[in-house]
Amino acid sequence: MKPNFTLRLRVFNLNCWGIPYLSKHRADRVKRLGDFLNMESFDLALLEEVWSEQDFQDLRQKLLPTYPAAHYFRSGIIGSGLCVFSKHPIQEFTQHVFTLNGYPYMIHHGDWFCGKAVGLLVLHLSGLVLNAYVTHLHAEYNRQKDVYLAHRVAQAWELAQFIHHTSKKADMVLLCGDLNLHPKDLGCRLLKEWTGLCDAYLETRDFKAVSGLYISCKTFKTTTGHDPHSGTPLSDHEALMATLCVRHSPPQHTSSPSHGPAERSALISVLREAWTELDQGMAQALWWATITGYVIGLGLLLLALLCALAVGGGIREVVILLWTPSVGLVLGAGAVYLFHVQEAKGLCRARAELQHVLGRAREAQDLSPESQPALQPGRQEGDRAEEQ
Amino acid sequence: MKPNFTLRLRVFNLNCWGIPYLSKHRADRVKRLGDFLNMESFDLALLEEVWSEQDFQDLRQKLLPTYPAAHYFRSGIIGSGLCVFSKHPIQEFTQHVFTLNGYPYMIHHGDWFCGKAVGLLVLHLSGLVLNAYVTHLHAEYNRQKDVYLAHRVAQAWELAQFIHHTSKKADMVLLCGDLNLHPKDLGCRLLKEWTGLCDAYLETRDFKAVSGLYISCKTFKTTTGHDPHSGTPLSDHEALMATLCVRHSPPQHTSSPSHGPAERSALISVLREAWTELDQGMAQALWWATITGYVIGLGLLLLALLCALAVGGGIREVVILLWTPSVGLVLGAGAVYLFHVQEAKGLCRARAELQHVLGRAREAQDLSPESQPALQPGRQEGDRAEEQ
Repeated sequence: MKPNFTLRLRVFNLNCWGIPYLSKHRADRVKRLGDFLNMESFDLALLEEVWSEQDFQDLRQKLLPTYPAAHYFRSGIIGSGLCVFSKHPIQEFTQHVFTLNGYPYMIHHGDWFCGKAVGLLVLHLSGLVLNAYVTHLHAEYNRQKDVYLAHRVAQAWELAQFIHHTSKKADMVLLCGDLNLHPKDLGCRLLKEWTGLCDAYLETRDFKAVSGLYISCKTFKTTTGHDPHSGTPLSDHEALMATLCVRHSPPQHTSSPSHGPAERSALISVLREAWTELDQGMAQALWWATITGYVIGLGLLLLALLCALAVGGGIREVVILLWTPSVGLVLGAGAVYLFHVQEAKGLCRARAELQHVLGRAREAQDLSPESQPALQPGRQEGDRAEEQ
Repeated sequence: MKPNFTLRLRVFNLNCWGIPYLSKHRADRVKRLGDFLNMESFDLALLEEVWSEQDFQDLRQKLLPTYPAAHYFRSGIIGSGLCVFSKHPIQEFTQHVFTLNGYPYMIHHGDWFCGKAVGLLVLHLSGLVLNAYVTHLHAEYNRQKDVYLAHRVAQAWELAQFIHHTSKKADMVLLCGDLNLHPKDLGCRLLKEWTGLCDAYLETRDFKAVSGLYISCKTFKTTTGHDPHSGTPLSDHEALMATLCVRHSPPQHTSSPSHGPAERSALISVLREAWTELDQGMAQALWWATITGYVIGLGLLLLALLCALAVGGGIREVVILLWTPSVGLVLGAGAVYLFHVQEAKGLCRARAELQHVLGRAREAQDLSPESQPALQPGRQEGDRAEEQ
């Protein structure tokens, strides 16, 4: 790579609000999105909420001359809604479906049926390896009383782990998508602290890259209610457009791995917070499993009673009327019970991974000379309590 | 690393057959396994079918002095059954739960409830990075008429992709587990061709390592019905013990990436075979979705008929008797329908990933001078037919 090397990368991201039959003016918006992407000719366009595969295929046909490479990430029952169009060949792709993603009985929210996931694309640009990730985390329906918080934190952790473990040889890492997180939210901080990624919106100068490379965000635009070339909006979300500039790093810009005491302290703090959140989620899941366990017991008792009544020649009509609803109760409660057992296992898994990282970060902190005297006392008990 | 550098790695793997209440002499076998592992003091012991977390905790307590690091991989409803004990600190760990893993209504087979997965451990040994993977794929209940073949092939592909994408910076890659595959089976060949891994049992000299390292398998032992120090078996599976030797690679041993025409041709062949298998699995899944779709329609028709009967003052007893079973039929068929839709999506996803790799391998083959004239004609149509 030459010292004066520069790579310009133009990226587009949009949550398309593409729910068949429900999203307003869907066909028209998809058409205009295609026109816009063709006209702007980005390097990479990453889309969320493209729930209809036909919409993807239509876009694909339309964008083929400008974006020869494309992929639709399939998962769950409805799909992940994620897709990508690229001007450059996609070398590799894969995906990871999140273990936890809401509740199947919250049908009106629908997230569980989607199979939310993170998609990975590996691109080779001017001899550099770019790992581009696209994702969509669980929706936030009520910010004040968010029953999905533990699931979203677990998703943010799984996302961070997926990026961490798959990007070790990448020169540049780019994450786009709809995280359903504010910049100061736990999930967002967890993601940034563990992966070392920077928010292009907040920090347009430093971006995750390997030592020897320097990425800056030259331009960062969002739409404001309408697309830039027509009066009507492209979606119920705003589109995001960024121009990233990759340069050979001058010595003062070399990105150092975030292993300083300040970074470690920030990581430890956010890991503790996430640990607590997942722990509470686990308690909640186990509480539901216990409750449904009681309901199953009650249903079985009722069935036994009905059997006794039938054998004893009791009121036949009551037996007939109550038998099937009782069986339904036992089966329904059984399904909910199994779901919450699985939920608890998923949260426990994320908590165990978090805890391991926390333990190692603390070890590193204890070994660093600056913090050794101040942080040792009074920590032993907390450590033990958090051991898996 | 010094030129005369040598690292010896002793590994143990066993499917423990640890089903609570069902597996015979479980407590005794777990106790003897612990004694054996303590006595042998392997570098790494990887276990499958440790279904009871209590068994893991008991082993953990017992093995703590010899294997200070341990992890239990939690997933699904019952669990993944995977765990690991290590003499060396575990730097990082994570896991990937397979998208497809049998059918929930095949309760007697139970695989769906387990949440089968692959676990990853990152260890730093003498300055080298070892990625150790432990997994357990779907059981094979009937080799002649294997209804789970497509799922196992999809799992083998997901496993291969997980290893491929997470091991890019690893110096050594070790995969242990119960693959439920014979060496010549499609899943096994797919795994080996895509990851470049070698079977320690078949090829005890060459093992996956980066250029500059050479791994050989010095000793390879399996138990033969009984554990080596007592007359009674440790499990219904045989244990596997290997001593791997990592050396600085002399020039003639430098493992070259498998990009030669022969390797590419083998990869293309196995990818095509897997593509066909997944395609057939998808057709099967869609057939089941269609059938259950008809059943749902029939159920709804029956419900409408019963409503008409009830309104028209028809035979009341028949309405009462048939109403709840009809609702049950619609709900049950609905659940099976959704399951098979999700199954088809999962298989389609694996097929798309496979196809992309296939496309790139073919491009590379077409560009290589040896094969250009022979392989060009007559291929265009097949390529088009397989496009996603």
